[in-house]
Amino acid sequence: MEVLLRELAQLVDGQLSGDGDIVITGAATIRDSKVGSITLADRAKLAGSLADCDAAAVVVSSDFSPEGIAYITVKNVHESFAKIVQRFQSPRTRERMGISKDARVSSTARIGSDVEIHPDASIGENVSIGDGSTIHSGVRIMDDCQIGDNVTIFPNAVLYENSRVGDRSVIHAGAVIGAYGFGYKTSGGRHQISAQLGYVEFGPDVEIGAGTTVDRGTYGPTKIGEGTKIDNQVQIAHNCQIGRHNLICSHVGIAGSATTGDYVVMAGQVGVADHLDIGNQVILGAKAGVMNDVPDGETWFGIPAMPSRKQMTRVASLGKIPEMRKQLKELQRQVKHLTEQAAETRSKDAA
Amino acid sequence: MEVLLRELAQLVDGQLSGDGDIVITGAATIRDSKVGSITLADRAKLAGSLADCDAAAVVVSSDFSPEGIAYITVKNVHESFAKIVQRFQSPRTRERMGISKDARVSSTARIGSDVEIHPDASIGENVSIGDGSTIHSGVRIMDDCQIGDNVTIFPNAVLYENSRVGDRSVIHAGAVIGAYGFGYKTSGGRHQISAQLGYVEFGPDVEIGAGTTVDRGTYGPTKIGEGTKIDNQVQIAHNCQIGRHNLICSHVGIAGSATTGDYVVMAGQVGVADHLDIGNQVILGAKAGVMNDVPDGETWFGIPAMPSRKQMTRVASLGKIPEMRKQLKELQRQVKHLTEQAAETRSKDAA
Amino acid sequence: MEVLLRELAQLVDGQLSGDGDIVITGAATIRDSKVGSITLADRAKLAGSLADCDAAAVVVSSDFSPEGIAYITVKNVHESFAKIVQRFQSPRTRERMGISKDARVSSTARIGSDVEIHPDASIGENVSIGDGSTIHSGVRIMDDCQIGDNVTIFPNAVLYENSRVGDRSVIHAGAVIGAYGFGYKTSGGRHQISAQLGYVEFGPDVEIGAGTTVDRGTYGPTKIGEGTKIDNQVQIAHNCQIGRHNLICSHVGIAGSATTGDYVVMAGQVGVADHLDIGNQVILGAKAGVMNDVPDGETWFGIPAMPSRKQMTRVASLGKIPEMRKQLKELQRQVKHLTEQAAETRSKDAA
Repeated sequence: MEVLLRELAQLVDGQLSGDGDIVITGAATIRDSKVGSITLADRAKLAGSLADCDAAAVVVSSDFSPEGIAYITVKNVHESFAKIVQRFQSPRTRERMGISKDARVSSTARIGSDVEIHPDASIGENVSIGDGSTIHSGVRIMDDCQIGDNVTIFPNAVLYENSRVGDRSVIHAGAVIGAYGFGYKTSGGRHQISAQLGYVEFGPDVEIGAGTTVDRGTYGPTKIGEGTKIDNQVQIAHNCQIGRHNLICSHVGIAGSATTGDYVVMAGQVGVADHLDIGNQVILGAKAGVMNDVPDGETWFGIPAMPSRKQMTRVASLGKIPEMRKQLKELQRQVKHLTEQAAETRSKDAA
Repeated sequence: MEVLLRELAQLVDGQLSGDGDIVITGAATIRDSKVGSITLADRAKLAGSLADCDAAAVVVSSDFSPEGIAYITVKNVHESFAKIVQRFQSPRTRERMGISKDARVSSTARIGSDVEIHPDASIGENVSIGDGSTIHSGVRIMDDCQIGDNVTIFPNAVLYENSRVGDRSVIHAGAVIGAYGFGYKTSGGRHQISAQLGYVEFGPDVEIGAGTTVDRGTYGPTKIGEGTKIDNQVQIAHNCQIGRHNLICSHVGIAGSATTGDYVVMAGQVGVADHLDIGNQVILGAKAGVMNDVPDGETWFGIPAMPSRKQMTRVASLGKIPEMRKQLKELQRQVKHLTEQAAETRSKDAA
Repeated sequence: MEVLLRELAQLVDGQLSGDGDIVITGAATIRDSKVGSITLADRAKLAGSLADCDAAAVVVSSDFSPEGIAYITVKNVHESFAKIVQRFQSPRTRERMGISKDARVSSTARIGSDVEIHPDASIGENVSIGDGSTIHSGVRIMDDCQIGDNVTIFPNAVLYENSRVGDRSVIHAGAVIGAYGFGYKTSGGRHQISAQLGYVEFGPDVEIGAGTTVDRGTYGPTKIGEGTKIDNQVQIAHNCQIGRHNLICSHVGIAGSATTGDYVVMAGQVGVADHLDIGNQVILGAKAGVMNDVPDGETWFGIPAMPSRKQMTRVASLGKIPEMRKQLKELQRQVKHLTEQAAETRSKDAA
């Protein structure tokens, strides 16, 4: 596909600097850019790599005027570049397929208008699906689930009985919602599983990553609050109450009955022990092992996790030990010397 | 649904204190309780939150007599409350569906009596499935697998060739049993995969969480012993021999050829290096990084993992460094002073 | 099955020591060996466990001549033993099934010769699949994907739109390729997902473990280089560029836009922060938390990860603190004593 640079500047309502007649043949990041492509630079710091790449033009923000290359200045670099990338992609406007005759939809399910259910998806008894939702192939929605409006569930995700998904939520492939909680009582040397009478409830605008698992509550709901986004392969255990607008990165594990406030951020591979309460706007650094409640607004990291200032002191402390050992040795030498001198003085005095 | 409190007390064979004519409209934990609902309090410590909630009644054990609320005293709070919760749930007594005509069952498979195979499940050649087992939609059981009696396999789980599952075992959605072991030999700069001739073997009463993966052995079995329960997203590598009645929490990874004894407990995100032997009744704390064999009965944690007492000393040590540095500085000051004094004394003496 | 030991020696072109007429009834590792079976011992160190096991014969390399048991000496113990194991397995030579009429293959898909597509697999619009590839049951290949020659995709794996898989690659069950990257911009208190216009691209001979997730790039590709092998439940985030011939173990998480060189090895549960560059032939120890670029050829471990020598010093330092505290106490005692002596001396002198 060939598009004039001028045309792209118009598309994104940007300010063109350079030759508008340059023919652009694709859009790619600096790393992937080729001769004839347009790229993006969201920081002036990228001037060096920009100079080294083959791109014919670049989208920049107003604080960066690159040299030796045509550029389009815009307000929002990423938003504009996304428009340009889409301009070069084939305009796949697939019609919504409706409910495939090869999907297995229970006769007791209530399906809204403009719902798309792909072949090989299973919709159990008494399930409801709101208007405009899309259920991909191989998705298994078990009995009594309630799916809101404009929800998207990607292939092979599984929702156990009675799961509730809020409007506009997205569940990625292979996620498992509502499996049994990992709670056991040991009796006579055998582990007996606890009650599994609860369910999972997502607020609106929740996103669940690929392979993520959210277990059902023991008697009531495991909850994920409005607008919370969860990355791939996260584990949310039974009875957890995750607040609103959290960002929870990959491989995080949150143990049973823990709660989080609103606007919490957890970096990758964080672990939170059971029954803890994590406050509003808390930030947990990557790999943090949280074993205590965390008050509102604090940033913790480390194993065991502590407030960041305290943890940094500890980490720095460790690096000081070799020097401290040298100081100790020197002190021992000096004290030995002083002790010998003192003994000598005393023996002289005594003489 | 409306049920009299008296009726619930009878249902759980409990001792009623308060007005038996109270109308109960639901059952929920303290956190989720509403006006008219019955809740549970398994510890007297919950008296405060109980007083703050809207519940109309509560199930307690004999050591707790709450005030200002009707209560039912029972022997086992959780067992009784589970009965009450179920009393309020719709009595869904789905008939067993038998073998769906839309399941793909090989003509060479041997299927026991009262087996349920849902639509879109695949049963390979020469597979055997014992009496009373349930295979959900989208489950893929590849050739030569042997599934015991009363086994439940949830949607979209995959069992590679020759996997063997003991009686009453449960495999949750998205689990993958018998994929290739991660063993390579590098030759000529390329990684060549090792032999993949083995299989996976589960004892009876094993439970496997959602998204958990158990790889096949190189030549023989990867084994999970009787009664062992494994949480979501756990990784058990090739040739592992996991003992009986272990409890293995989410995101644990056990590397190739490691073994565990009986009644081992591993908390979340533990890692065990390859070829290690973990003894009977060992407890591994959350996030432990185990790089040595662990003797019977010990509790280890930390990275690298150590016996808990030793590790606690180390963790505490780190906190002592700032104080030690102060002490060092004070000593240096004192020694400097002493040294100067001594020099002064000597020069006086010399005078 | 019964095979003479002599016959097995011929099969592997090995040197027989002992009675060739011994009847062998199976092949198993030392741990699993039974009376009548042949086993393997790839190190002389195994002489003890070999003596304790019931095996009737053993495959060894030329540097080990076990006593009291017949043995076959070979050049490559594992290769030879694999041949013997296969000799005892039923010669399952399943014919390739071709394209099942119960697979859902778009009419616009381009399918090579000798391709096997199992029932309930879904092949989207405009997908291409190369010669000799095998697509198992429940695999979902979404629109515009390009699959090379001789690729194997195991059951229930999901490839989102436009994923590209190189020749001879293997994708295990439940893997998810091309889900949305976890990138958000917060605006007005709500998290807005970034552009998801990119895709995933695997070189040839890539292997992807069960349950592993590789997210699509923002505008262009997330890349996995030729010959790289990835274990189960690994997370590769959006825009990552993983080099050639890496070995990446289970539960590793690599955050957005990170890159690795060639021949990188990451042990289990490693985390790499976003935008980092990991050099060629770098080794990252288990559970390393990498927060800085790592130069070529280095071995790092720990949280935060550091070069191994430096980290070992730090770990050792921690163990020295108790001794240092003793030394400090002793110094304090000595200095106190010296100070008192000096005061005494001075008061005497003054007298």
